[in-house]
Amino acid sequence: MTSFRFVQIRNFIVKCLAKYDCNLEHAGQLADTLICADYRGHYSHGISRLYVYVEDIATKSCAASGKPKILKRKGATAWVDGQNLLGPVVGNYCMQLAVDIAKDVGIGWVVVKNSNHFGTCGWYVQRAINNGMLGMVFTNTSPCVFPTRSAEKCIGSNPICMAAPSEDGDSFFLDMAASTVAYGKVCLEVLYNNKDALDGKDKQKYGKIELEDECGVEKIPETWGTDCNGEVTVDPKSVLSGGGLQPLGGCEETGGYKGTGLCMMVEILCGILGGAAFGRNIRQWRSTEENADLGHCFIAIDPECFAPGFAHRLHQFLTETRNSKRISDDKPVLVAGDRERMHMTMCDEMGGIVYDKIQLQHLVRAFFFASVFVQRIQQNSTNLFC
Amino acid sequence: MTSFRFVQIRNFIVKCLAKYDCNLEHAGQLADTLICADYRGHYSHGISRLYVYVEDIATKSCAASGKPKILKRKGATAWVDGQNLLGPVVGNYCMQLAVDIAKDVGIGWVVVKNSNHFGTCGWYVQRAINNGMLGMVFTNTSPCVFPTRSAEKCIGSNPICMAAPSEDGDSFFLDMAASTVAYGKVCLEVLYNNKDALDGKDKQKYGKIELEDECGVEKIPETWGTDCNGEVTVDPKSVLSGGGLQPLGGCEETGGYKGTGLCMMVEILCGILGGAAFGRNIRQWRSTEENADLGHCFIAIDPECFAPGFAHRLHQFLTETRNSKRISDDKPVLVAGDRERMHMTMCDEMGGIVYDKIQLQHLVRAFFFASVFVQRIQQNSTNLFC
Repeated sequence: MTSFRFVQIRNFIVKCLAKYDCNLEHAGQLADTLICADYRGHYSHGISRLYVYVEDIATKSCAASGKPKILKRKGATAWVDGQNLLGPVVGNYCMQLAVDIAKDVGIGWVVVKNSNHFGTCGWYVQRAINNGMLGMVFTNTSPCVFPTRSAEKCIGSNPICMAAPSEDGDSFFLDMAASTVAYGKVCLEVLYNNKDALDGKDKQKYGKIELEDECGVEKIPETWGTDCNGEVTVDPKSVLSGGGLQPLGGCEETGGYKGTGLCMMVEILCGILGGAAFGRNIRQWRSTEENADLGHCFIAIDPECFAPGFAHRLHQFLTETRNSKRISDDKPVLVAGDRERMHMTMCDEMGGIVYDKIQLQHLVRAFFFASVFVQRIQQNSTNLFC
Repeated sequence: MTSFRFVQIRNFIVKCLAKYDCNLEHAGQLADTLICADYRGHYSHGISRLYVYVEDIATKSCAASGKPKILKRKGATAWVDGQNLLGPVVGNYCMQLAVDIAKDVGIGWVVVKNSNHFGTCGWYVQRAINNGMLGMVFTNTSPCVFPTRSAEKCIGSNPICMAAPSEDGDSFFLDMAASTVAYGKVCLEVLYNNKDALDGKDKQKYGKIELEDECGVEKIPETWGTDCNGEVTVDPKSVLSGGGLQPLGGCEETGGYKGTGLCMMVEILCGILGGAAFGRNIRQWRSTEENADLGHCFIAIDPECFAPGFAHRLHQFLTETRNSKRISDDKPVLVAGDRERMHMTMCDEMGGIVYDKIQLQHLVRAFFFASVFVQRIQQNSTNLFC
């Protein structure tokens, strides 16, 4: 385990993007988003994905400078053109707009087209929390889920994110793919199948934070993935080599049609409402031949418009849920956001964000394939952040 | 199979409630909601639940007349007191208010406290569709779900409903409990375990419409229910005798923590935001000793505020999904709402809503236990609607 200070990581990311003439302020916004994901323990959406953004900027499939543009503005709503900028630049702009509108009329509902991957939804929804509001964030993604009964991977894992401020800095913080798991989680399973590369102690510690305690590293549960024909598989390599994800719930019998419905709901709120690419028409992951043209939806809700005492009631609800009787004494009942809070506390105690050897090796490999900073990384594979 | 005309059923319901001095117009609103549920094939939320509403009115735990009251009104929002009226009276009022607000400012967001069971969310969201808008409806419910890791049934199955208008009367129409299945579905499984009472042909036909094709009637899938300690069970009787439901996804390993998150998200949008009862504090199902004080949330979204051509894009999305390659030739890929449309078409062809023998017997038993119209029902168990 090695921990890195925020400023080290931020400088590294900004330098990577600056090499391709990316606006430095934009690069900084991307850096903050990725660092936050790692800080919260969502390593699948942190700096391990930096190469994707670098590829987009380097190939000019994403604009390196500019400003999002409001296309329509009425009452509680705004429709925005993301001008093909980096996702975090678009996302920060739209979420702030939603918060500003909500201050006026109680709700701010902003939908944007022509955007790019923006990292985790959680980064944006935090801005609502910081303003004493509830936030909801949705985005469509490249198709990676097989809808129930379909042999085609024609919809994204389309995350649903909702957060609400409680008392004393506590919050409800849900940020979930509408598939049973996110793609990144299957990738991590494969990564950790390479047992030789992993120190046993590190794996145990890491497993406590990021992976479910119960997850075997040999195979994945039946409700996670499919092979390339949409058939259920427990082999993570089959999922990653042309297969895909199952909607939340798994197969039809176990409620997967609800997960399919949630994936489609998010697509309607993003791609369909925003006039962005949607469903099967979104470019494949890591393709840079065409613009991503992703759609996002940002909602801010001022609780002051409803019953007084919101934060106090939420505190009671969270506390009662956490304190409910456990099935197993050693497994506390968690509410959405608790796992991330545990990870952030660990990082704080260690003085920075914690990466283990295998994550750094993965980062190096990713950069190698992206042909970015190849020499430097090969020369000094454990000291990226100088 | 016996089909009944809408007007027969409506008159029957209104008469039942009139006996307990319920406002006739209110009784009519309840009737329309229940009938719509049966028409759409959601028998678990239709007239089979009439006895619950009758009990509430008869015991005065629900107000038989009055009008919902707006407590706050700002911009896109309204906070409403349901005045403990019948759920459908509250729901119709609030959804219309949301639509009216959305006409002005693009979004209408109405949260209500002090309400009662309102049937299916789908009834209300249809009002948004009828006005060319997208609609979202949420409600909390009596606690019936065991949150992940919890040995206590301390949260509701809290449905999520979202509908959006497409071209030529088509729509996306998602109306789902945030548990893997609704309680009513487990009840139906038990009902249909009584094979002797069921004609084989009827069961086959009914199975095609309401139950999943794959559902065995002997036991339920592993991700549906729990026993009274929160442990997974496949015995539906164990679920119904003190057990409960699993959140969407099932156990922790298969993504159940996401379903728990969704249940809690809905509770926050309803009970917490509205200042209604919430979580474990909501009265038990069919208890009439205290008011239900349920909270609901109604959202209307005017697509004209965003990218032009919404209905056309949605049509393309629905068509592309339905036409995607099938895993099995005999199982068409469905989008949310298709199953209900098939059922409505069948009813139309048969000249009314279709009930089979076992459903009518169940209705009779339910009324027997509720001590409502006992004599009449006992005398004439297959001719309720005169």
